[in-house]
Amino acid sequence: MTGQYGLLAPVWADTEAAAATSDEAVVYALLHVEAAWAETLAAADLAPEASARAVRRLCEDQAVPHAAPIDPRVLAAGGVAGGNPVIPLLGEIRRALADRGGSDAALHRGATSQDVLDTAMNLIVRTVAAGIIARAIRICDALAAHAQTHRGTVCVARSLTRHALPTTFGLRAAGWLDGVREAVSALHRAVESLPLQWGGAVGTQAALTDRYGSGGASELTDQLADRLKMPSARPWHTQRRPMLDVGSALTGVVAALGKIAGDVLILQRPEIAELAEPADASRGGSSAMPQKQNPVLSVLLRSAADAAPGHLATLFGAAAAAQDERPDGAWHAEWPAVSELLRLAGGSAVRADELITGLRVFPDRMRETVDDAGEALLSERLMQHLSSVLPGGAQAVQEAVRTSLADGASLRGLIEAQLRSADPNPDREAALDALDDLFDPAQYLGRADEFVDSAVADYQQIRSAWT
Amino acid sequence: MTGQYGLLAPVWADTEAAAATSDEAVVYALLHVEAAWAETLAAADLAPEASARAVRRLCEDQAVPHAAPIDPRVLAAGGVAGGNPVIPLLGEIRRALADRGGSDAALHRGATSQDVLDTAMNLIVRTVAAGIIARAIRICDALAAHAQTHRGTVCVARSLTRHALPTTFGLRAAGWLDGVREAVSALHRAVESLPLQWGGAVGTQAALTDRYGSGGASELTDQLADRLKMPSARPWHTQRRPMLDVGSALTGVVAALGKIAGDVLILQRPEIAELAEPADASRGGSSAMPQKQNPVLSVLLRSAADAAPGHLATLFGAAAAAQDERPDGAWHAEWPAVSELLRLAGGSAVRADELITGLRVFPDRMRETVDDAGEALLSERLMQHLSSVLPGGAQAVQEAVRTSLADGASLRGLIEAQLRSADPNPDREAALDALDDLFDPAQYLGRADEFVDSAVADYQQIRSAWT
Amino acid sequence: MTGQYGLLAPVWADTEAAAATSDEAVVYALLHVEAAWAETLAAADLAPEASARAVRRLCEDQAVPHAAPIDPRVLAAGGVAGGNPVIPLLGEIRRALADRGGSDAALHRGATSQDVLDTAMNLIVRTVAAGIIARAIRICDALAAHAQTHRGTVCVARSLTRHALPTTFGLRAAGWLDGVREAVSALHRAVESLPLQWGGAVGTQAALTDRYGSGGASELTDQLADRLKMPSARPWHTQRRPMLDVGSALTGVVAALGKIAGDVLILQRPEIAELAEPADASRGGSSAMPQKQNPVLSVLLRSAADAAPGHLATLFGAAAAAQDERPDGAWHAEWPAVSELLRLAGGSAVRADELITGLRVFPDRMRETVDDAGEALLSERLMQHLSSVLPGGAQAVQEAVRTSLADGASLRGLIEAQLRSADPNPDREAALDALDDLFDPAQYLGRADEFVDSAVADYQQIRSAWT
Amino acid sequence: MTGQYGLLAPVWADTEAAAATSDEAVVYALLHVEAAWAETLAAADLAPEASARAVRRLCEDQAVPHAAPIDPRVLAAGGVAGGNPVIPLLGEIRRALADRGGSDAALHRGATSQDVLDTAMNLIVRTVAAGIIARAIRICDALAAHAQTHRGTVCVARSLTRHALPTTFGLRAAGWLDGVREAVSALHRAVESLPLQWGGAVGTQAALTDRYGSGGASELTDQLADRLKMPSARPWHTQRRPMLDVGSALTGVVAALGKIAGDVLILQRPEIAELAEPADASRGGSSAMPQKQNPVLSVLLRSAADAAPGHLATLFGAAAAAQDERPDGAWHAEWPAVSELLRLAGGSAVRADELITGLRVFPDRMRETVDDAGEALLSERLMQHLSSVLPGGAQAVQEAVRTSLADGASLRGLIEAQLRSADPNPDREAALDALDDLFDPAQYLGRADEFVDSAVADYQQIRSAWT
Repeated sequence: MTGQYGLLAPVWADTEAAAATSDEAVVYALLHVEAAWAETLAAADLAPEASARAVRRLCEDQAVPHAAPIDPRVLAAGGVAGGNPVIPLLGEIRRALADRGGSDAALHRGATSQDVLDTAMNLIVRTVAAGIIARAIRICDALAAHAQTHRGTVCVARSLTRHALPTTFGLRAAGWLDGVREAVSALHRAVESLPLQWGGAVGTQAALTDRYGSGGASELTDQLADRLKMPSARPWHTQRRPMLDVGSALTGVVAALGKIAGDVLILQRPEIAELAEPADASRGGSSAMPQKQNPVLSVLLRSAADAAPGHLATLFGAAAAAQDERPDGAWHAEWPAVSELLRLAGGSAVRADELITGLRVFPDRMRETVDDAGEALLSERLMQHLSSVLPGGAQAVQEAVRTSLADGASLRGLIEAQLRSADPNPDREAALDALDDLFDPAQYLGRADEFVDSAVADYQQIRSAWT
Repeated sequence: MTGQYGLLAPVWADTEAAAATSDEAVVYALLHVEAAWAETLAAADLAPEASARAVRRLCEDQAVPHAAPIDPRVLAAGGVAGGNPVIPLLGEIRRALADRGGSDAALHRGATSQDVLDTAMNLIVRTVAAGIIARAIRICDALAAHAQTHRGTVCVARSLTRHALPTTFGLRAAGWLDGVREAVSALHRAVESLPLQWGGAVGTQAALTDRYGSGGASELTDQLADRLKMPSARPWHTQRRPMLDVGSALTGVVAALGKIAGDVLILQRPEIAELAEPADASRGGSSAMPQKQNPVLSVLLRSAADAAPGHLATLFGAAAAAQDERPDGAWHAEWPAVSELLRLAGGSAVRADELITGLRVFPDRMRETVDDAGEALLSERLMQHLSSVLPGGAQAVQEAVRTSLADGASLRGLIEAQLRSADPNPDREAALDALDDLFDPAQYLGRADEFVDSAVADYQQIRSAWT
Repeated sequence: MTGQYGLLAPVWADTEAAAATSDEAVVYALLHVEAAWAETLAAADLAPEASARAVRRLCEDQAVPHAAPIDPRVLAAGGVAGGNPVIPLLGEIRRALADRGGSDAALHRGATSQDVLDTAMNLIVRTVAAGIIARAIRICDALAAHAQTHRGTVCVARSLTRHALPTTFGLRAAGWLDGVREAVSALHRAVESLPLQWGGAVGTQAALTDRYGSGGASELTDQLADRLKMPSARPWHTQRRPMLDVGSALTGVVAALGKIAGDVLILQRPEIAELAEPADASRGGSSAMPQKQNPVLSVLLRSAADAAPGHLATLFGAAAAAQDERPDGAWHAEWPAVSELLRLAGGSAVRADELITGLRVFPDRMRETVDDAGEALLSERLMQHLSSVLPGGAQAVQEAVRTSLADGASLRGLIEAQLRSADPNPDREAALDALDDLFDPAQYLGRADEFVDSAVADYQQIRSAWT
Repeated sequence: MTGQYGLLAPVWADTEAAAATSDEAVVYALLHVEAAWAETLAAADLAPEASARAVRRLCEDQAVPHAAPIDPRVLAAGGVAGGNPVIPLLGEIRRALADRGGSDAALHRGATSQDVLDTAMNLIVRTVAAGIIARAIRICDALAAHAQTHRGTVCVARSLTRHALPTTFGLRAAGWLDGVREAVSALHRAVESLPLQWGGAVGTQAALTDRYGSGGASELTDQLADRLKMPSARPWHTQRRPMLDVGSALTGVVAALGKIAGDVLILQRPEIAELAEPADASRGGSSAMPQKQNPVLSVLLRSAADAAPGHLATLFGAAAAAQDERPDGAWHAEWPAVSELLRLAGGSAVRADELITGLRVFPDRMRETVDDAGEALLSERLMQHLSSVLPGGAQAVQEAVRTSLADGASLRGLIEAQLRSADPNPDREAALDALDDLFDPAQYLGRADEFVDSAVADYQQIRSAWT
C-alpha cells in the first residue's frame, strides 16, 4: 500500500509533527494505551502481570522501525470493515501475542474502540504540542530579542497598505510576540486539560463496573489516567469540547505564525526590502533564475494558514453532529481533521523557528522608507499641534499636506511660511521653535517602548510554565 | 434603504440577540464608546464637561426608536466611502452637536476608527453573551432536573445508530449538561477577558502620548476601560486572539446546543417517540397536514449548527491575514462573521431554552424500546459473565445471540439450555441462579448514577460564577 | 520517514483513489509529464530521441514498486527547501540519468515547476475521476434498478422528521439517482475541460518562445496537450478556475453520496428498519456486542461528507489569494486540499458502490410504517376532497384528524359518521362512495411513477457519455 | 424590530444586491410566486380570474415602499413558530385579501412552503445575477481595454513575491479578464438552468395530481415555469445541486474579483506605486492623516473574498445533510448562506466596476521597477542563450548573476568580459553581437501579446450571450 509523506505539504514534510502523527505513530499510541491499561489491571492484581508485560513488549517493539510487529498498512486496510483501526488492532495484538506465547487475558478489558482511539489521540496531541511549545520558546525568545534590540529602530507603520505613522520594528516584533505567546498559552492550557477517555461502549463504564464495582471502576480509571499523565474525567464520547479546544488552539498557533509570515512576505518584497528570510543557501533558490531567492519559509507558513481554518470548521461541525451515544460519522470525521491540524501547527512551528531565529532586519532600509514617506508621515501630529496655531486651522494643515504631496514642495516649508505670515504671538513663536522636534519621527512613537517592555515581561512570566 | 430582520434566519429572528446586533445597536454602541471617552477626558479635566455631556445625550437619544439622531441606514451607505462606519459617524455626531449647539471638543481625541469599532463590538459581545448566559442557566437548570428526575429511567444507548447497551435518560441529560456547561464556561471566560482596544492609528497611542505623556495616556486608557467595565490591555489591532476566543466560544455554544437538538430530532421521530418537543400549539403546526407537529425548535438549532463553523473559519483565516498595522480586508471580514455568530448563538440559546424547559420525556416508551431491543442488549454482559462458564466459551455466547436474532428464539432460553446441558458444577449453578439479574437492563448501567451526580455538582459549582 | 496510509481515514483507506493520490503516484505523474515533454521535443526533432527515451524509461521504472529510481520520501524531504517537489525531482532525475548514462538534454526545457506540478495534478485528477465515474455507473445502474423495481413500493415520506404523505421507495431511489447523476456529470465536465498548464516561469512562455518562436511554442504546447490527452489552453497559473470546478464537482459527488448515506442511516435504524446495509459478515460486526451490525459503509460516507466542504472552502480562498504571477502560499495550499478531495470522493464512490449494489430493501416493513402512520397520512388529501363536502369544512377535517390522533378513534369512522350526519346530497353520496379510495395511500402518489421514469431516462441518456 | 442594512458590510451596503436580497424583496418574491401560480390556475380556468388578480394586486402594492400590505418584520417574527416565512405569509395574504374583499380561492393550491420559497430564491438569484452580469460587462470591457492599451507596457512579473521575469501589464489585465469571464460564465450557466421547484409536500405533486391528473399537473407546472421564465424540472427538494452550482459560481465571482483586488493592493503600495485606485476624492480619505488615500475598493473586495468560502462550505454541508423528503435543518441553513453569497458577489461586482473602470495605471513607474530589477531580470534568458557559449557554461552565468547582485557590478559587463576572454569563435561573436537584444526586457515577453489577443477574443465571443 502506498502512502503520503508530505510531498504535497512541504510545510510539515520531514518534521517531528509528521512523524508523531504518522500511521506508524498512531499504531504505537494505540498499543501504548492498551499496554498501560493492561499494566493498570495488573498493578491492581486484576490481571496477570505477565500478560501486561507481553503487551508492553509488543508496544516497545512497535517503536523499532522494520521490526514493528504490526504493520500500519495492514491495519489501515483492516480498519475499513469496522470503520476504525482498533478492531483489527486487537486481532493483530492477539495474533502477535499468540506467536510469542503471550497471554491476552488483560487486553482491552471493559474498554471500547473509542476509549483507546480518543486516548491515543490525546497522547499524540501531547507529543506534538510539546514539540510546538519547545519551538515556541525559541521563537518567542528570538522575538523578544528582536523587540528589545529594535526598540529604537524607527520604521513606517502601514494601515490598509498605506504609510500611516512612524512606529518601531521593536514594537512590531513585540506584537508578533504577543500573538505567539497567547496562541501557545491557549494550546498549553488545552493540552494540560485534555482528559482520558474511558467510558466503555456507551459511556457508562458498565462492563468495568460489572466486574469491579463502581469504586473499582473509578479507581482503575484514575490509575490509568495517572499512568498516562493526563486528567481523569467523566466520559466525553459525544461531548467533544476537549477536542474543540485543542483544534481552536492549534489553528490559533497557525494563525499567529501566519500573521508573522504575512508581514515578512510584505516587508521582504524587493521594493520594500526591510526584512529578509535567513540567508541559507539551501533555501528558496531557483536554478533557472539565479537572481531569485524565494521567501520559502514564509510561503509555507502562509500555506498552512490558508488550510487550517477549514479543518477547524470540520471539527466544530462534527462536534455538533455527535448524536446518540456514538455518532454515525462525526467522530470519524474528527480524526483526520485533528491530525492534519497537528501537522500544520507542528510544521509551522518548525518553519517559523528557522524563519524568526534567522530573520535579517535592515534598519537602514527602514529609515529610508520613513524618509521616503516624508514629512507627511507626521501629519496626524501636525494636525494636533498646529490646528489651533495656524491661521486657517485644521483645514490649513490638511491643505498644506495635499499641496506638498501634489507639488513636491516641502511640507515643513509650507507650514513655516504660514506660521511666519501669521501675526506674531507667543503660540506662533513656540510653534516655530518646536518645528524641528515636530517633524522628527522618532519623537512620535507614543508608548512603543513601554509596550515592548510589557510584552516581553508578559512572555518572560509565562515562559517558565511552558518548560 | 431596505434591510434584513431575520426573515430567512428564524433561529434568531425576533430575539434579543437580533436586536443587540442590529445596525441600530451598533450605532448606539459606537456612540457609547465615544461618549465614554469624552467623559473620561472630562473627568480628568482634559475636556469640557459640557462637551462630554452633549455626546452622552446624543447617545441616550439614540436608544429611543424614531427619535434617534443618527440613522443607521445613512451610516451604512456613508461607510462605503471609507470602508467603515466610524468615519461617517463622526460627521453625523458633529452635525448633530452643531444642531444642538453642543461642542465636539472632546470627541474622538487621539482615537482611531478601529479603537471605537473594536470596543463597540466588545460591548455588543458582552450584551449578547450576558443574554446567552442567562438563558444557559435556565437550560442547565432544566437539564440538571431532567438528569436527576430520570436517573432511573432506563433507555437504549445507541452507537452508530444501533442499539448497544442500556443507559438512562438521566445520564443522557447529564451529558447534554456537561456540553452546555463547558461551552458556556468558555464563553464566560472569553468575554470576561475581552479587552478594550485603544491604540490610536497604528497601536502606539502616539497622539494621546503626544498630548498627555506616556503616564497620562496610560491612565486615561485604564480609566476608559474601567468606565466600560472591560480589561485594559496593550493594543491588539492586528493580534486578533481575543476575537478568536469569542468566536470559538460562540461556535462551541451553538455546537453544544446543536448536539442536543440532533438527539432530540432522532428521539422524537414517530418510530422512536421517546421524546417530544414542548406541546405548544403555536409551534410546528401544518394547516395542510393537521396530523403533523414539526420539531421546529430542534430544526432551527440544527440550522444554526450547520451555519456557524463557516463563520468561525472566516475569523481564523482573517486573523492569520491581519497584516501590517491594519490589514487590507481581514479586519473588515471579521465584523459580519462575529455578529452573525452572536446571532446564531444568541438565537440558539432562546430556542434551546424553550425546547429544554418544555421537553416532553416518555419513560414508558423508552422502556418499550429497551424491551424491543431485547435480551441481546445485554450481550456484552453475557460475554463477560458466561464466556468462562458456558461450554464453547465466548463463541457459544456469540452464536446464541445470532441464533436468537435469526430465529426469534429466546436468548435466555438458549443460554439456560446450554448451561443445563453442561456438567453440573458450582459455576454453572451460580450462573443459573444469576440469570434473572443478568438479563435485567437496570442492573447493567455502570456508573450512570454517579456520573449524573458529578455532572450536576460540576454545574452547581460554576452556576454562581455566571450570575 | 513515516507516512499516512489511511489508518484514520477508513472512508478511503485501501482504495484506488488512495493509491492514485499517494506520494508514489505523484512522483510518477511528475515524471510522466517530464517524459511526455521530452518526447514532444524529440518528436519535433528539437531534442535527442535517446534523451526522451531515457526519461520515459525512468518513468516506467518508477511504476514498479521497490524498483522505483526515485524515493518519494526523499523528494518530500527535499521539497521543503524550495517549497515544492519539482525542484528536487529534477536533481533526482539528473542523478538517475547520469547513473544510467542517459542525457538530460531535453529535460524540463522552458518549463517551470508549476507547469509540471499543475499538469501532474491534472493527470491524477483524471485517473481518480475515471475511477469515480466507473463506480458511479455501477451505483447509478443499481439506483435505476431500485427505482424501477420499487416504483410500487409504497412508503412514508418524511418531512422535518415527521410522517408527511405516502411516496414510493422507487421515487426515493430516483431522487438519489438524480443527485448522483448530476454530481458525476459535473465532475465529468470539469475533468474533460481541465487544461494543460504550460506557461513557463510567469505565464508568458518566454523561454520557449525565445527558442522556438511564438508559432513553435504554440505548436509544442498543443502537441504536449495531445500527448497527455488534455485540452491546451492559455496559462492559468493564477486563475484557478479549472481547479475550483474540479473541487466543486468532487465535493458535490461526496455530498450526493452523503445524502444517500444519511437517508440509509435513518431508514436502517432498528426502530425503522426499512433498509439494511449489505449483509456482509465482514462489515460492521462487534465482537463485544455480537447483536450489533453497524452501518459502516454509510457511516464512512457521512464522515467524508462532513470533511469535504472545509477543503472546498480552502480552494476558493486560495484561488482568491492567487496574487502576482505566482502567489506566496495560496498555490501551495491548493495541493493537499485537492488531493484530499480526490481521496474523499474516490473513497466515497467505492463505499457507495458496495452500499447501493448490496442495499437490502424491506417493502413489507415500509408498508407497516405506512400502516402505523395510519389514516392521518392522507390528511392533506382529505382536506382537499372533503373540505367542501363535510359540514364544518376544512376545520372539521382538521378536528377529526386531531380527535383521531388524541383518542385513537378511527379517522375514517369519524369522517364517515360526519358525512352520514349531513343532509343527503349527491356530493355526500359521492364522498361516501369514494372513501375506500380516499384512504388508500397507493392512490395518493402523484407523479411518482412518471418521475421515476424520467429520472431513469435522464440517466440512461448520459450514461454512454461516461463510458 | 431592528435590522441590518450593511453597516458592518460596506462591501455590499447600499448596492442593488443588498436591496434585491432584503427581507422586503424576499416578501415581494414570495408574493410574486403565489401570484404567478394563481394566474397560472386562472389562465387554465381552474381558479377565478378575480382571485388571481387580487393576489397580483397585493404583490404589486408590496413593491411600493410604505404602502406594502405585508410587513417583513411581522413575517420574520411570525416565521419562527413554523420555521419558515411562507406559513405566516399565507395568513397575511388571506387577511389582506379579506380586508379588500378579495378571494383566496386560488391561493397556494397544491403547493408547499418549500415550493414557494425555493422558487422565490430562484427569482432573487436571477435578479442579483443579472445585476452582476451587467457590471461584469463593464468590468470586462475595461479589462479588455487595459489589456489592449497596455500590451506594450513592460513590467515586472512577480513569483512568490520576487521579481522573476518581464511581462506586460496588458497580459496581467488579460489574466484578470480570463478570471472574470470564466467566473461570470459559470454564474450565467448556473442561473440559466436554475429550475422551478414545484413538488408539493414531498415532491410527488400528489395534491395537484389528485385534482388535475398527472397530465394536468405536468402542464400547470410547465406553464408556471414559463410564466416565471425559468426551466421546469422534476422536484429537487432534497437534491440541492442547482443551489450548489449557484453557490460555487457566486463564490467564484467573488474569488476572481478578489484576486484582482489582491494584485491591486500590492501594486498600489507606496513602495511599488504601479497602480492606483480611482482618484475619487470621496473615497478612502482620512481626516486625521490627510496624506493617506486608502485603497478602499480593493480592501472591500478582499473582505468579501475572505468571507465567501465559509458560506459555500455551509451550502455543500447542507446539501449532504438534506435527509428524508425535507431535512431537519439543512434546508434552513441554506437560505442565509445563499443570500449572503448574493450580497457578497453583487457588492463585489459594484466595487470592482468602480475600481477597474477607474484604475490608474502608471507605465513609467512599471518601467522604473523593471530597470531597478535590473539585468538580472533576464537571467533565465541568459542561462538559455549563453550556457553553451560561455566558458564555464550554466554555472558561469549563475555566478555572474550572483557576483553582480553582490557587488553591484554590471551583469552585462561581467558577461561581456567573459565572452571576450574566451577563444574567438562564431558563437562567441554572435553572442557579443546579440548582447543588446539579449538584455532588452521588451524582447523577452514570449507570447504575451498573442495571449492578450486570444483572451480578449474569448471574451468578445461570450459577451453577446450575456446581454
